[in-house]
This record gives sequence, C-alpha cells and structure tokens, in this order.
Amino acid sequence: MKQACVFLLLAVVAGPLSAAEGMWTLDNLPRAALKERYDFTPDAQWVDHVMKASVRLASGCSGSFVSANGLVLTNAHCVLDCVQALSGPQSDYVNRGFIAHRREAERQCPSEELNQLEAISDVTERVRKATAGLSGQAFIDARNAETARIESECVGAAAATRRCDVVELYGGGLYHLYRYRRYADVRLVFAPEYRIGFFGGDPDNFNFPRYNLDMGLLRVYEDGKPATTPQFFPIRREGAAVGELVMVTGHPGNTKRQLTVAQLERLRDADLIDLLAYYSERRALLWQYGRQSAEAARQAQSDLTYTENSLKVIRGQLDALLEPALLAHKRMEEERLRQIAGALQPDPWAAIAQAQQVYRTLRRPYTLLENRRGFYSEHFRIARHLVRAAEERTKPNHERLPEYQDAALPRLQQTLLSPEPIYPAYEKTKLAWSLTKLREQLGVDDPLVKLVLGNESPEVLAAKLVDGTRLSDPAERRRLWEGGFEAISASTDPFIQLARAIDAPSRELRKRYESEVEAVENKQAATIARVRFAHDGMQVYPDATFTLRLSYGEVRGWQEDGRTIPPFTTFAGLFQRATGTDPFALPESWLKAQTRLDGQTPFNFVTTNDIIGGNSGSPIIDRAGRIVGLAFDGNIHSLGGSFWYDEARNRCVGVHSAAMIEALDKVYGAKALLRELVVQP
Amino acid sequence: MKQACVFLLLAVVAGPLSAAEGMWTLDNLPRAALKERYDFTPDAQWVDHVMKASVRLASGCSGSFVSANGLVLTNAHCVLDCVQALSGPQSDYVNRGFIAHRREAERQCPSEELNQLEAISDVTERVRKATAGLSGQAFIDARNAETARIESECVGAAAATRRCDVVELYGGGLYHLYRYRRYADVRLVFAPEYRIGFFGGDPDNFNFPRYNLDMGLLRVYEDGKPATTPQFFPIRREGAAVGELVMVTGHPGNTKRQLTVAQLERLRDADLIDLLAYYSERRALLWQYGRQSAEAARQAQSDLTYTENSLKVIRGQLDALLEPALLAHKRMEEERLRQIAGALQPDPWAAIAQAQQVYRTLRRPYTLLENRRGFYSEHFRIARHLVRAAEERTKPNHERLPEYQDAALPRLQQTLLSPEPIYPAYEKTKLAWSLTKLREQLGVDDPLVKLVLGNESPEVLAAKLVDGTRLSDPAERRRLWEGGFEAISASTDPFIQLARAIDAPSRELRKRYESEVEAVENKQAATIARVRFAHDGMQVYPDATFTLRLSYGEVRGWQEDGRTIPPFTTFAGLFQRATGTDPFALPESWLKAQTRLDGQTPFNFVTTNDIIGGNSGSPIIDRAGRIVGLAFDGNIHSLGGSFWYDEARNRCVGVHSAAMIEALDKVYGAKALLRELVVQP
Repeated sequence: MKQACVFLLLAVVAGPLSAAEGMWTLDNLPRAALKERYDFTPDAQWVDHVMKASVRLASGCSGSFVSANGLVLTNAHCVLDCVQALSGPQSDYVNRGFIAHRREAERQCPSEELNQLEAISDVTERVRKATAGLSGQAFIDARNAETARIESECVGAAAATRRCDVVELYGGGLYHLYRYRRYADVRLVFAPEYRIGFFGGDPDNFNFPRYNLDMGLLRVYEDGKPATTPQFFPIRREGAAVGELVMVTGHPGNTKRQLTVAQLERLRDADLIDLLAYYSERRALLWQYGRQSAEAARQAQSDLTYTENSLKVIRGQLDALLEPALLAHKRMEEERLRQIAGALQPDPWAAIAQAQQVYRTLRRPYTLLENRRGFYSEHFRIARHLVRAAEERTKPNHERLPEYQDAALPRLQQTLLSPEPIYPAYEKTKLAWSLTKLREQLGVDDPLVKLVLGNESPEVLAAKLVDGTRLSDPAERRRLWEGGFEAISASTDPFIQLARAIDAPSRELRKRYESEVEAVENKQAATIARVRFAHDGMQVYPDATFTLRLSYGEVRGWQEDGRTIPPFTTFAGLFQRATGTDPFALPESWLKAQTRLDGQTPFNFVTTNDIIGGNSGSPIIDRAGRIVGLAFDGNIHSLGGSFWYDEARNRCVGVHSAAMIEALDKVYGAKALLRELVVQP
Repeated sequence: MKQACVFLLLAVVAGPLSAAEGMWTLDNLPRAALKERYDFTPDAQWVDHVMKASVRLASGCSGSFVSANGLVLTNAHCVLDCVQALSGPQSDYVNRGFIAHRREAERQCPSEELNQLEAISDVTERVRKATAGLSGQAFIDARNAETARIESECVGAAAATRRCDVVELYGGGLYHLYRYRRYADVRLVFAPEYRIGFFGGDPDNFNFPRYNLDMGLLRVYEDGKPATTPQFFPIRREGAAVGELVMVTGHPGNTKRQLTVAQLERLRDADLIDLLAYYSERRALLWQYGRQSAEAARQAQSDLTYTENSLKVIRGQLDALLEPALLAHKRMEEERLRQIAGALQPDPWAAIAQAQQVYRTLRRPYTLLENRRGFYSEHFRIARHLVRAAEERTKPNHERLPEYQDAALPRLQQTLLSPEPIYPAYEKTKLAWSLTKLREQLGVDDPLVKLVLGNESPEVLAAKLVDGTRLSDPAERRRLWEGGFEAISASTDPFIQLARAIDAPSRELRKRYESEVEAVENKQAATIARVRFAHDGMQVYPDATFTLRLSYGEVRGWQEDGRTIPPFTTFAGLFQRATGTDPFALPESWLKAQTRLDGQTPFNFVTTNDIIGGNSGSPIIDRAGRIVGLAFDGNIHSLGGSFWYDEARNRCVGVHSAAMIEALDKVYGAKALLRELVVQP
C-alpha cells in the first residue's frame, strides 16, 4: 500500500497536463499556456481566419487553403486514393506523378469531399434533455434522433453545400454542432511520384530522420469554376527557427486518452492483439498479390500502404499499453478522479468495466459482420450500403442509423456512384481471404458462417460472387440507389443477396453493441467528464473526434538511446540516403534536378506539436498565420499519443516550406502554381 | 495484503498436482496415483516393454512399433514431409495418398530418423561437478563440454546405430543420459490422402468433434532389410470404454510449467505477440503463393500446414497467458516456493527476472539472425549448417556447438544431403519476404541490415541469391560438406558467402543470449528445482523435453459453454460433415467405400491424457499394452497445457483403433498390412 500512496501524492501534485500537450477545440484554446510560454494571444479574428483557412478531407485527412482560388495543400498520401482512381494501366499517375500546368488539366477526384468549418455551437442541453433518464438502447435511439434533428435543421435545404455534424466531446460530456461549407467537386492539381512522396516507404514510416515530399495539391470548384476562398494561408519560405512557436490546425481522428483502465486493458488484450494478427496477415496477402505483376502491384498499392500504416499504429499502441509506466500513470489519474468524485451510484468505472466484459463476448462477430472484417471487398461495401440505405431511407430521418441520415447522404451517394474501377481478380483474393477469417474466428459450425458459406469454400464462393455481380458498373449502382427498397428487394445480384441475408444478424449485433457497451460507456464517461470539469475547469481538452483542433509546440529534436536527433533534414541527406532500389529509389525527375537543387535546403523537420492520424495534411503555421511546414507523420513515439502525450519524445514530422517551394520550382517547373501561391521570404 | 494471504493459504492446502496431470519420465512413474485411481501397478517388464515399443521420429513426432518387422504407426501429418519429398508434379502422393502393398514398394524417406529408447541413466553429478562454481559463458561452455564427453563415451564407435542425448530435466535440476537405438533407413509404407488425413484442415485443427484418419505407417530397415523389432504393441480393435484407464507414451516437445512469473510475462508480452504477427503474415504469404497453381499449392502445403498449426498454438498460449486466473495461480505457486525457500542469495526469482530484461534487448536480432527468422529459406538453412559445421568440425568434439558434436552429425548430414527438391520461385518468395522482416525489425540503418542488403531491395537480393546458388544440387552440398573448412572458404556460392558474412555477429548474439539469459535461467531454475525436490519429493514431473514420457487418463468428454461434448465421433458423422469442398471434401476412395463402411464405427475420440506438441503419433494404450488409439491432436483448451493442466477441459484427441483397421481394410484394401498387424478384438 505504501507504493500506491506515493503515486497518488505525485498525481495530485503533478497536475493533469504536460507542456505542449493537447488537441484543443478552437472555441477553447489554451490561452494561458500560449501567453505564458510564448507570449502569444490569438484574437478572435486570428481564430476565425485559421478556422476558415483550414479544411478537412472527408476521406480522413486535413489540409488548408493556400490561395484565394480554392487551391488546397495537403499530403501526397492523402490524395493517393484519388491519384489511383484516375490511373489505369496506361496512365500510371501513382508512379509517374501528376501535375496540371493549366486549370483545364485538373482532374476531378471521383470520391473526395472537402469540409470547411464555419461555426461551432453548443447543443449539449438539447441532447441532454432528449436523453434524460434513459439508458441502453433507448438512450442511443433518443440521442441519435435528437442529433439527426439538430443536423437536419442546420443543413436545411442546402445539403449540396452544407454539412452539419453533432460532435460528441469528452465521451459525451459535451455535444457541439459543427457547421461546414461542403465542397463536393474536388480536383487533383499536383501529386509527386510515389517514390518521393513516400520515399523510404514502410521502413521509414513513423521514423525520423526523414526525406519525403509528402505534399499534394487539390482545388475545390463551385459550379464548374474554382471556388473563391479569401481565407487562406501564405507560405513562409524560410520556415520556423528552433524553439519558435508553431501551431498545427487539423483534424486528429481519434485518441483514447480519457479511457478508463478497464477500457485500456480490453483494448490491449482483446482488440489490438487481434488487429495485429489481422493486419499482419492482410499485409502479406496484398504484398504477395502485388508480386504477380506491375499492374497487380499498382492495384494493391493503396490498400497495402494503408495496411502497413495501420500495422505500425497498432504495434505502437500495443507497445505503449504493454509499457508498465503508462498503465501505472492511468491508474494514478483514475484514482485521483475517484477521490474527487467520492461515492457515485452507480460507480461509473465499475459500470464501464462491466461493459468491457460484454464487449469481449460480442467483439468477434461484431467486427466481422457489422464492421465487415469478414467481407474485405469493395463490392460488399457497396452492397451493404445499398441494402441498408434502401431500408433506412423509408424511415423518418431521425429514426435512421446515423450514416443514412440526410446529412450524410450526399457524401455516401458520391462514394457509392464513383466510377473508380474495381478489379475482379483483386476482389476475389481479398474476399476469399477474409471469408477464411470469418470461418476461423466464428468457427465452422457457427450458424452465420454456415449461412454465408453453405457448402462452398471461401475461394469458390468469392469467385462466384465476383463473377456473378453487376455492381462493378456504376450505372447499375445508380439504378439500385435510385430504385430504393423495391429495386433492392427485386435484385438477384449475389452481393446484394449476401448483404440482405446477413443484414438482420448484423444489425442485431450492432444493437447489442450500442445498447450494452456504447450506451454504458457514453453515459458513464459523461459522468466522469462532469467530475473532471467540476474540479479542473475547462483546462482539459476532449479526445480527438476528426474535428478541427489546434495544437501548439515548437521545432525541436529529441534524445534517443543517448543520441541527439537533430530537428531538420536536407535535400543533400535525401540524395545520400537514396540507394537506387525501392523504397529508397528516387524518381527520374529528382535525379535530373539534383544539380539544380540546393543541397542545404531543409527538407523535413520535427516539432513538439501533439498530433495523431487524421492530422495528415495539416498546415504547420507560425503566429502570423504563415505556413512553415506541412504535417505528414509522427515519429514512432507519437503512436503512444493515442493514450498520453510524452513531450520528451513525441514528435510531429513535417515537410519544410522551403522544400515544397524549391521542389515545385526546380523539379516540377510549376510556374503557374508558384505564381498562385503567396510565398513570403 | 489480505487478499494475498488468502491465496497463499489455498495454495499450501491445495497441493501441487491435478488428477491426470503430468508427463512422467519412465523412471519416475506416478505409481501412487495409478494404484489409487485405477488399481494399476506397472511392473518393470511392463515399463521396459512400452519403452522399447515406443519410438521417436527425429523430425519431431512420436510413434510405436506395431509389428515384429519394424512397422511403425504414427500420424499422417508426421509423415507429410516425407510424402511431399517423394512427390512431384507427376506423382502427387500428398493428395493421392501412398500405399505399399509389397515391401519392395516401400520408399525411403530422404531425411527421417527413428529413435528407440534403450536406457536412461543419471549423470547429474558429473555435470554438476564439471560446472561447480561457474556462471555465465563459463558455465555454458563447461556444461556443453561435459555433456559432449558423456554423449561421446556413450555412442562410442556406434554412431550409425546409436544416439545418446544428455537431457536437462527440471530446467537443470537433473541431467539424465538417454541412449537410443538409431534407425536412419526409414521407409514410407502408408499415408492416406491429405483430404482424409487432415479432414477439416486448419478450421478443425485443435477442435473436436473431429473426423481425421491422421495415421501413417513407416518401416525401419537395417542393412537393407526390415528391422527385427520384437517389442511392439498389438491393436485392440474395440478400443477403450469411457472411464477406462488409458496411457499415452510419447515425446512431448516442450512445456513451460516451471517458468517463473517474470518468464511468463516476458513470453506473453515479448515473444508470443511478435510470433503471432510473424506467423500471421507468413500464413497469408504461403496461402497467396499457393493460389497461383495446383503445383504452387503443393509446394507450399507442408509449410502452410506447419504455419497454421503454429499460429493456433501461439494464439492458444497467448490466450492462456492473458487469462488472469492463470497468472494468479502461478503467482500463488511462486509465493509458496519462496516461502519454502526462505532467504536465498542471490534470489533466484529476482535473478531470472533480471535476465528477462536482458533478453528483451537481445530478442529481435537473436531470433532474426541466430534463429534465421530473417532468412526463411532452405538454401540459407543449408548454407548456415555447412559454414558452421566446417568451422566446428575443426575443433575437439567437446568444444563444439552442441548441434555439431559427433552425436548429432549423422542426422545433420542426412538432412543436408537429402535429395528433396528445392523450388526456386518458392524460395525467392519466402526469402524476399523474410528479408523485409529483417529490415523492419532491426531498422533500415542497422549495420547488420546494411551488411545483408547493401543497396539491394529484399526482392532483388533474394532473386540474385537463389539464381546464383548451386546449393540446390545435393552433389554440391556433399562436396562442401566433405571438403570442410577449405571448401567453404574457397566457395563463391552467394548463400555460402552470406552465411559466412553474418556468422560472427550471429554467434556473438548467441553467446550473449546463452551467457546472459540462458545460463542465469538454468542455474537459478536448478536452485528452484532443488527447493521443490526438498519439499515435494519426486512427486513432480519435469517440463517436456522431447523425450519419452507417459501420461495417464481416461476416455471422457467435457463441458463447453454448458453443452456436453461426447467423447466419440463415428464414420457416419464424417460423411455428414463432408461438404464436397476443401477442407471438407472427401477423397474418392472414401466416397467409393461409403456403402461398405459401418457408419457406427468410432472414428476419433478424446481422453484426459496430458499431452502436448511432439506427442503426435503417440500410441494410446490400455493397461495390457494394447493400442486403443493414436494421439494426433489436443482440443483448443490443450493449448494452455504449455503452462498448466486443466483436467476439466484439456483433452487429447485420437484416432480410434477400430477406425484404423476398418479403413485399412475397406478403403485401402491393405491385406498384407492387416496380416502383419496383430489385431485383437
């Protein structure tokens, strides 16, 4: 008991936050810390400007406007899906890169959408009133219905250009309404060759020193013309000095810093270990599929990159949770909150722990069926949405599953009707493999497995489904989308039939997950959040929710095993690291430009900003709102950032502003783009 | 602290062993339990008989003599490597099965060896004297030298027909000398088609109910003639009744029941999680490789089966160690021993815990280089052995690494010179992939990675190595083996050069592992074993060591989620489960024989015997020494058997004797074999 008391004392003394920690909502910036540490006091105009100059890519990244004509800066890896969709065996933009020297050459991304945050408002009271006294499924239903109503009212008749999301903050402690300007016509302007955009490939991913031109440019259009975007960031070519305040505005996807110890243990022992095995297997599947031919490799490239990236994230999170110090720290913080809370009935930590036990029994069928892990197939993804949307759209908006409510339909329709090609052999491979996972995890004798497989093997069934479907044809998808419930009921497409067959059991699993796990976690997390607000005030930030956040920090290296890692790399370092063999081979354009480039140009750099996946493409700005870099990664220690922030080692990795300008100029000859960007010394 | 005291009390009261627990050495049978529970008192003759009728397959399985003419019964999966080695695109015995109706048709397995235990003697004092006062590398060297001397003396001039192994029991608490009759001429007599030998494939592996004819027959030869083996088991066709005493004699490979809590935690957090990821990835690699063609599938089949089996074992072990009850039980037992031990200097548990920290830092390079996990290639395996053997054989026997001491050379030579084909495309795939693991785990900038890869990618390097080597040719391997150090030094073969290049760093890692981890664990485990002997007497059994053990138990089903799993399946159940699609498709021979077979014939069954991997192929015998079944698997709960024995759920799975006789007769028409077997009703 002595040991525990010492810990507890430290906890109360130490206070809740590290310096530079936090992904802050724009309506609750860490003003005191910014003032004290950097003598910086952002005014309302500054905040409004950075909010409107920052954008979200609906596919999962961040970006920013860099001209008044809708030009958007983001990462190469954030536009890779678009580049791949526009490519074919004869036009391999993935490996050759893409640049539009004239506006007419800009090509529409088949399934991208950009969101620009316009306003935030607090709707906590409305949601709290609607859910008062409820629990389980009733709580979930009431919450979903009320958020649907709020979102509908907000969107009104402007669905094509407006998006409204009710965002749950602090695990349900607050509900905020985020209103966005929605841009659905997004065109590709520039993407470098894969070799330089992702130089070092998976081996260098989440590592530093680093040498990536991980930048891409998009442009948003309105009525067929470049949109007018007066709020944008100029670029400060010289970048930021070591120790200078820099801020990142972007959309961190997901952190788990407020989870209870029981939730973290469940995550470690149940989820992450399974995910590690799942993604490891999937990685070799895609790798070996790609070895057949250059075309096969191109087909699998985006999935493989995603898979390898996920694998590093999972491994990093698992390592963090296996680190005894992390859970000790979490236990300490939990004990602190328990002390503050006193006796609560029911005990929120105990209730959440109990829900984790329920989760463990539901987890496998839930992820396989409802999260489609047993059906790794683009056709099935489409079929699931068509089948569900057809049923959900017969209901009043507020009774639908959230992803089929009016606010979400424009983007859903866009992705479902995208002309992006689907490759049959690739689909068969992925689907056959994932069906073996379904059988393995649920067991041969599981009724759902029997329902899906019947007497077929995974391979034979996958081949029959892919050969028999017409869903590869966007016109057929449009027919089913527009035909609604009737068209779906009449369809004999094997994927539609499969999606229909497992829809009821899959919904049932979701219902159980939501009512027995999520509803409990949500209600109890809100209670814990209120305990925290009452004691710590608003000097806490919510877990990431893929909504706009600001983090502050500075350019700074770190210590690794006694060595000092300097904060900058240079072009000279790039040419030194290049071996001529992938993933360390340079594209021809760079080899040709080598003599023209200044080797001392800073290329990549690290900062102490607290970021996480979803922040990819975020601008790194100075206090004057000028871009000094482009966030594209974190170092390996940033992966523990899901659970805590470690200022000593957690680093954000960015492309330096000078490198972007120098490359556009000397490698790509992008004269028109350079004229459009506002570049300051 | 209260909680801990209650645990402790329970521990002391509960006593150390469950009923039916234990893999007992034949010189220390659980006589009291056998007498008390089953009124069975084996005499010296009985023990000597079952010892000599039981055999070990050096490749990692168990078996038994079933005729006086050297006929050996084991599992189909234990002869699969041999069947695959004898197969080619034109003679696919894996899928068509193999049966020799006449002796002349029996085919020699290119790299199998059988060992028949002849005598056990205690050499603890000799080893203890040789290592007295030593620690670290000096301890390891002295122990290895002394065991080499003991083994040499034992083998004498009879290396071709005798094998002697000093076996470390109780983690070094005892050393016993096992003397074997060695049979190097092993021929394939019978193997069923893969579809029935491994019916249900990976999905049914470690599951029950089960329907496998997982049997194979071999024959040992001496001087080109069937060996004379007077000690053999007859077969009791009716099998054993529910509740009847049955015993398994065989060679369980490895258990970890005596590990300390620190060792178990290291195993869970460091080893098993990594292995899970490694084997998951490898599985998809082999699976996808096999999808290219039937021939590719055949090439990968044995590796894939091994990989999938390993994966289930790893998953089962990990799940067991994630089960809070298991570690609680281990902590309790450790506390009991600490109490018995009193104050020891150094504290053995603390010393072992400290060694685990060292292990964690060595683990990755050690497994990648010394255990060859970064070089998944048959060519590299051969090159490593040729390079090491050439150097080691220049040294006096007792100074060599154990695997190159005289006692081990005959078997090593046999496997190195085996004419088994090596498939270049398959090798390139495996090697390229494993080189990516080397790079991933050590990092691009690691000097060893740079030494291996230079400026090449894993794929290009693998292709160059495989295309440039002559090691696929057994004659070239013989030339290098016989040419010794000089031939190896002069070789320009790229695999030999690679193996030479990394030999010194690889040996250095091994040295560090042995002196800083293994030596500590070994010395301290011996101390803990002596504490245990002093208190519990010899009523404990050592962890499995791939040496002959006897376990006792009975035919009995179990309870699973409230359902009762009956102990027997039947032929009728097999035909009911068959879907016509792999891995649930039946071979033609069985489909044709269906009407001739009695559906009520018991097929597979479960017993409470405590077994583990390595026991595959073990006879299940009654008290009269008659075979009632053939062990081939455990149920899913048996995987926790690495750490503890759970009589409620841990089950051994066997092929029933009646099924074997019925199938040989009615499916395979094996008249001559049936005449040779001694079948009793």
